[in-house]
Amino acid sequence: MTSTANLNQFIESTVTNLDLAAIQLDQPASIDDLPTPALIIDLDVFERNLNKMQSHVNEHGMGLRCHTKMHKSPIIAKRQIELGAIGICCATVSEAEVMAAAGIENILITSPVVTDDKLRRVVALADKVAGLQIVVDHIQGATRLNDLAEKRDIHVLIDLDPGMGRTGVEPCEPALSLAKHIYQQCSRLQLDGLQMYIGNCMHVQGFEARRSKYQHLLQKGVETRALIEANDIEVKVFSGGGTGTYDMEPGLGVLTDIQAGSYAFMDVEYRDIGGQDNDQVFGDFEPSLFVLATAISQPQSRRITMDAGIKCLATDTSRPEFRDIEGVVYHFGGDEHGIVQLNNPSKEIKLGDRLPIITPHCDPTVNLFDYYYPHRAGVVNEIWPISARGRSQ
Amino acid sequence: MTSTANLNQFIESTVTNLDLAAIQLDQPASIDDLPTPALIIDLDVFERNLNKMQSHVNEHGMGLRCHTKMHKSPIIAKRQIELGAIGICCATVSEAEVMAAAGIENILITSPVVTDDKLRRVVALADKVAGLQIVVDHIQGATRLNDLAEKRDIHVLIDLDPGMGRTGVEPCEPALSLAKHIYQQCSRLQLDGLQMYIGNCMHVQGFEARRSKYQHLLQKGVETRALIEANDIEVKVFSGGGTGTYDMEPGLGVLTDIQAGSYAFMDVEYRDIGGQDNDQVFGDFEPSLFVLATAISQPQSRRITMDAGIKCLATDTSRPEFRDIEGVVYHFGGDEHGIVQLNNPSKEIKLGDRLPIITPHCDPTVNLFDYYYPHRAGVVNEIWPISARGRSQ
Repeated sequence: MTSTANLNQFIESTVTNLDLAAIQLDQPASIDDLPTPALIIDLDVFERNLNKMQSHVNEHGMGLRCHTKMHKSPIIAKRQIELGAIGICCATVSEAEVMAAAGIENILITSPVVTDDKLRRVVALADKVAGLQIVVDHIQGATRLNDLAEKRDIHVLIDLDPGMGRTGVEPCEPALSLAKHIYQQCSRLQLDGLQMYIGNCMHVQGFEARRSKYQHLLQKGVETRALIEANDIEVKVFSGGGTGTYDMEPGLGVLTDIQAGSYAFMDVEYRDIGGQDNDQVFGDFEPSLFVLATAISQPQSRRITMDAGIKCLATDTSRPEFRDIEGVVYHFGGDEHGIVQLNNPSKEIKLGDRLPIITPHCDPTVNLFDYYYPHRAGVVNEIWPISARGRSQ
Repeated sequence: MTSTANLNQFIESTVTNLDLAAIQLDQPASIDDLPTPALIIDLDVFERNLNKMQSHVNEHGMGLRCHTKMHKSPIIAKRQIELGAIGICCATVSEAEVMAAAGIENILITSPVVTDDKLRRVVALADKVAGLQIVVDHIQGATRLNDLAEKRDIHVLIDLDPGMGRTGVEPCEPALSLAKHIYQQCSRLQLDGLQMYIGNCMHVQGFEARRSKYQHLLQKGVETRALIEANDIEVKVFSGGGTGTYDMEPGLGVLTDIQAGSYAFMDVEYRDIGGQDNDQVFGDFEPSLFVLATAISQPQSRRITMDAGIKCLATDTSRPEFRDIEGVVYHFGGDEHGIVQLNNPSKEIKLGDRLPIITPHCDPTVNLFDYYYPHRAGVVNEIWPISARGRSQ
């Protein structure tokens, strides 16, 4: 048994003990040697995705604020920043702490916090991170953050609810009222602007249906900004958008930056929303992340069992799909297994075969692994710790 | 960037670097101070569950082989062994490696492996662990394991498919054929007996319906054992059963040991299968594990948002439920949020409130956290690392 002085010391130790950097293999490995289930990144595809999104925002004079809740990796965040991202988003305080420990600046925490323990951690982060911002959506949280800030300035965005009923203040008058409260009563809070993440829109099937809903919902944000500015409160930042709506923005010219995450890896759920040219497949970004799994058992001839179950593939949305095999259906077979129904397989699957699976939903799938194995043409030169995995606090 | 010689060295380092022991807090904490979402164990309830199951198997002359895929903790495994468990089950080789590193013996690996990398790891484990066993379900895997064993003896059980089509060989003749192959052709494999985990039965709703299906399916195992013994191959071990069927065994006298896991923590899914006295609630074991979450936002008056989403509560089965509040419905609101629909709440929920949630499915929920906070009446004296979390390999 080891010992530690108290809870706070323990919590701090969970950050300082993390692996933040890539692990170099002196002797390169093949993806055929990885212990399955393994999370692999096809670097060529991944880099194409990163470049495409960055070029897009560059062309349209917007900023890219990559959401790291998706990949949980300071290594990937740094690559995105090197390519031109203006900063990153984190969904939780503990995620932001990991990114900060890796030396990353310009971090926006995209979910409100209300309890003193978390607000204190935000204040402590503001001392360490240049360009820290956090959203607020209620007078209670804003007031308490202001109190705890003491002599520091904390930069905040007002989180607007796009009608999801998840987080955020209602647009227009309620948002204005919160803006005035911050501006007039919270001397330590610097109101930088607004966040409106329209999560209820990202997965609407079909480009036109999605754009129409998105632009309709975003209108409330536009009105809110005008209303706040009409009250002589500056709105420098309007952050929102995501992978599913990344190219619906420029015509509107509303957002200052987009909070995309999934575009880097893609998944079955995003692929299926349809794109501008193909209503069935959103092909602007390509799957670059896969769970490599092995066929380990075949109790019945029309099925075969993989070593990838609900502990390594997210179950909240779509089914997993093989990258290279069609005509089969992947059923979850418990914690450690997937049972593949062999309806009309485009390729035979034999015991011992190792097959890449497109993840159903990339964010919660990544969160189940400790390491990425990035590879180029099957050769793995380094291993990337998923440093912020599990940091839901 | 750090560096390591090769892939195998890296894989070994992921075990040697783990925290295996409890972390003592010199200054006890209150569960009110924990950063949410936090995984908490009510020790009084937990210990009642452990004692009840152990007393049950003692009374009926069976062994308890606790499944550690559920709790992923050598600390808990050791408690179970101290109370009288004859050993543990692990679902994966990498889980077994963690338990072995903590000094635990008598480990049964309950899922077959077929590739050389994993079979070599099993052979290496057999050198270190007294009483290591692994299941086999196919001539291919058995033969290769025998080849790789070289001069060591490896103890195996034949895994029987109870009709799930997940893993296992078909009972009766196909199983006999595999038994003969092992007995006659695999000089290094010691065939200890059979495993028949009837997973397709554990969650059948209603005690009688469950018992009837269980006993029907188990019959094939009984016939298989008789058939193998009639061919002069000894069957010392017949391992199977679980939390949902733990008290359906003694009348049959078939299994030598049961592989229960969830009884220690319980969850919504198991509670809802119904028990002998109450067809709606299986109350033999009580929920001892909770995700403690905080209400962080309330964009709409009839809903309130918790900081616990799909990255800290499993989504494969039931909905999460509050331990202390009824009349509400918990909807997943993405990776980091749960949106609680306030139909007719038995207690008001306010921003900042911290509430324990009964996990929908304990195994994959535990796998999302790094630490347990065990407490007695709200006081946390130590923290237990979930050492085998994420070890799906």
